[in-house]
Amino acid sequence: MDGRHVIVASNRGPVSFERDDAGRVVARRGAGGLVTALTGALSATGGRWIAAAMSEEDRRLAGTGPVEVEGPAGSGSYRVRFLALEPRAYEAYYQGISNRVLWFLNHYLWDTARLPSFDAGTAGAWLAYRQVNESFAATLAEEPGGAGGGWGGTHAYLVQDYHLALAPAALRRLRPDARIAHFWHTPFAGPDYLAILPRELREELLAGTLGADVVGFQAPGWARQFLAACRLLPGASVDARRRRVRFGGREVSVGVYPVGVDTAGLDALAASEEAAAAGRALEAWLGDRRLVLRADRTELSKNVLRGFLAFEALLANRPDLRGRVAMLAMLNPSRLDLPEYRAYLDDCLAAAARVDERFGEGPDDPVRVVIADDYPATLAAHARYDVLLVNPTFDGMNLVAKEGPWLNRRDGALVLSENAGAFSELGRHAVRVSPFDVEGTAAAMAAALDMPVAERRRRLRGLRRAVLASPPERWVRRQLGDLDAANAAR
Amino acid sequence: MDGRHVIVASNRGPVSFERDDAGRVVARRGAGGLVTALTGALSATGGRWIAAAMSEEDRRLAGTGPVEVEGPAGSGSYRVRFLALEPRAYEAYYQGISNRVLWFLNHYLWDTARLPSFDAGTAGAWLAYRQVNESFAATLAEEPGGAGGGWGGTHAYLVQDYHLALAPAALRRLRPDARIAHFWHTPFAGPDYLAILPRELREELLAGTLGADVVGFQAPGWARQFLAACRLLPGASVDARRRRVRFGGREVSVGVYPVGVDTAGLDALAASEEAAAAGRALEAWLGDRRLVLRADRTELSKNVLRGFLAFEALLANRPDLRGRVAMLAMLNPSRLDLPEYRAYLDDCLAAAARVDERFGEGPDDPVRVVIADDYPATLAAHARYDVLLVNPTFDGMNLVAKEGPWLNRRDGALVLSENAGAFSELGRHAVRVSPFDVEGTAAAMAAALDMPVAERRRRLRGLRRAVLASPPERWVRRQLGDLDAANAAR
Repeated sequence: MDGRHVIVASNRGPVSFERDDAGRVVARRGAGGLVTALTGALSATGGRWIAAAMSEEDRRLAGTGPVEVEGPAGSGSYRVRFLALEPRAYEAYYQGISNRVLWFLNHYLWDTARLPSFDAGTAGAWLAYRQVNESFAATLAEEPGGAGGGWGGTHAYLVQDYHLALAPAALRRLRPDARIAHFWHTPFAGPDYLAILPRELREELLAGTLGADVVGFQAPGWARQFLAACRLLPGASVDARRRRVRFGGREVSVGVYPVGVDTAGLDALAASEEAAAAGRALEAWLGDRRLVLRADRTELSKNVLRGFLAFEALLANRPDLRGRVAMLAMLNPSRLDLPEYRAYLDDCLAAAARVDERFGEGPDDPVRVVIADDYPATLAAHARYDVLLVNPTFDGMNLVAKEGPWLNRRDGALVLSENAGAFSELGRHAVRVSPFDVEGTAAAMAAALDMPVAERRRRLRGLRRAVLASPPERWVRRQLGDLDAANAAR
Repeated sequence: MDGRHVIVASNRGPVSFERDDAGRVVARRGAGGLVTALTGALSATGGRWIAAAMSEEDRRLAGTGPVEVEGPAGSGSYRVRFLALEPRAYEAYYQGISNRVLWFLNHYLWDTARLPSFDAGTAGAWLAYRQVNESFAATLAEEPGGAGGGWGGTHAYLVQDYHLALAPAALRRLRPDARIAHFWHTPFAGPDYLAILPRELREELLAGTLGADVVGFQAPGWARQFLAACRLLPGASVDARRRRVRFGGREVSVGVYPVGVDTAGLDALAASEEAAAAGRALEAWLGDRRLVLRADRTELSKNVLRGFLAFEALLANRPDLRGRVAMLAMLNPSRLDLPEYRAYLDDCLAAAARVDERFGEGPDDPVRVVIADDYPATLAAHARYDVLLVNPTFDGMNLVAKEGPWLNRRDGALVLSENAGAFSELGRHAVRVSPFDVEGTAAAMAAALDMPVAERRRRLRGLRRAVLASPPERWVRRQLGDLDAANAAR
């Protein structure tokens, strides 16, 4: 990395601080391959991570300057700088625009007869969204040496996700020579759906992300849709074959960088005593039944409801499977402060209860739903499943589809939505489903359960190879390499 | 038309028969430019119209052969042949697939967290849809001389709309040399949204319409999205620039044929005593207030709800307009047997009531909602409006946007959704809105009300010229011409 700093920006940082009962400052670290890879890269280069303050303690630290944090084992340390944002502006930026507009947009979630409805409240929230993005950009521009540093061209900015879609262009205005990559962890809507956004908003959104030198996506389909959507932006010229967009006198490169999982970290967690205990509890419930597993956040796009409907159809279509297969849904609570999410979870639970009522016999219900943030139990379930159901309506990547096969010890099969970004890497080893096709999903689960063990084993090996081929470090390294190439071409 | 027969196929025919109280058979004729143009073309060529039987009397007539019907004044007569379809199959084809799947698909209406949900019921309905389409095709193939006629190449089949998307390919199998045009009156979803349909369904749908020689749309945008969607079909090769699709060894031409209105017929209806009486009643309610009008079916895609929200925002933003402008919504009941439609209408009425409560003073409420099939009153309102609001979320064409300006006598302005097919013909004379932008729609209504009369008059003239440029006869003539060209190229 040529002694160059890497500077990451994201809404939520890799760490957040709190005070425990004794008044001591305690760090709560984020987990997952991405955090490990990015903090590893930061530690290697002496880089920084800019994130919104999440806690009171983060806010206090925002006033005292960057915080030194230890990176992954042996990699040294890096610095986190918190932004203390005005709470009402943060709420409008985070819930009003990021979660309720941009998330819904890029996951095709709008019930268009009613939503979206851009009113005066949305217009105000958009101003807040722009303002928060500009605050991030200003902080990025002044890190670490102040405005007069003139070092913009020697650093690599890695701006994360839909929360910060306007930050690349805002940073570009402050630092014309900066090297900026912007990565979308979500899908990206096609041009017809993106056009639901009023013109000024969609144009500002596209121009915002095109402030970067490199715009990255999880899967080729999202990059393709982004390129097609860029044709909506006056003044942009798109070369879909070369994945380039010319806009504002600059050339932007569009790339595909699939996020991977930290297999060593997963193995360590799966070997924990908590995971082992959870595994024993799972066996006790399951008995000699086979297991269909799903593990998701309680997120509209994860398609939990149709999953239960498909399991119901499976038991209805295949009497021989009744009492011989069970479904476990590990649901990690998410966004339950939004009314759409609460109503959806209620519908999911009602569907699960109906399956139990219709097909349950004795104490062992065919469906178990666990609503909890219980990672050890999820890891244990991954080791044990016979079928892993990953059926999102739309999903940028879906890491469960990678973590499950990595941990599985039963030659379990993966039933995978064609609309998960992971499908482009894993699809040929999975049983493909259209997520809207309940009957097709039931048939896919039946096919997975009926599959000869030799084929399941062969497919599981293929899945593991695909997971290994995409380590998190590669995600960082390839983006930095493409930033260098873009800079060299300039 | 070279002595060639024109044969039209559509779900609903241009006429339906009933018995009155005295037991006499009475014809109920459809109205509108399209029926006039098509029946005129049929009368001129001695052609036929094939449609599903709607009434008991239609069913009886289906058994006795084609019915001779008088065409538009002076054009002679044509024949209607009714298909008596098995009621349960018809219901599955009409509601199960046409209205609940294909209509929702092509108007982006799905609340994707819950709908569509393709289950065993949908699979059965799809079989019925295919079967009804094949029945139409078989009837088309045997008209008029029986299977041995060998005249397929000398006739022009004009197959209508999303109900009959599989009929072109089914007819092609029976009559390889037939000249077939298939026209989509709806929008056509882009490839990302079309991909919500499970693969087999979307491929059968695309291959079905590609059985035609000419596939027609109301507006360039829908043709473009159809061409992009055809890339999802294995074996199809798309030339977007020339608007051609090669599939199954044949070349299919994709055309844009905007449906027009019968201006002479409209004038005659608007001159009726019923319309005059309705006009007087409207004036009595309105007084000297200015009028914002909308006239729509109670259809989810017409965006009635956001229209009321926008009118509320208008009165909230502009106190000077309170008491000086009123909104009339003429809502023609449609599909209220579907629960989504009933719930939506309830929401619309609640929003209208809220505006009245918030801004009403005295007996003259600012909003009046008329739920009725009252065409004379609608015509009278068109003559009187100051602003016509046409804000569908998505609409194949929208003929209200053409009928209103044609009839208006007040230099009224048109506020038009960028997602109505009519926008491509009328947009430059209208005030453009994004249908999802409530605040923007309020601003557009304000701009329309504030516009100097000279500009409104100039724009209205432009709208009328555009309406005159697209007479219904032209819609038929151009399709027949393109069918000839396609046949000559073959």
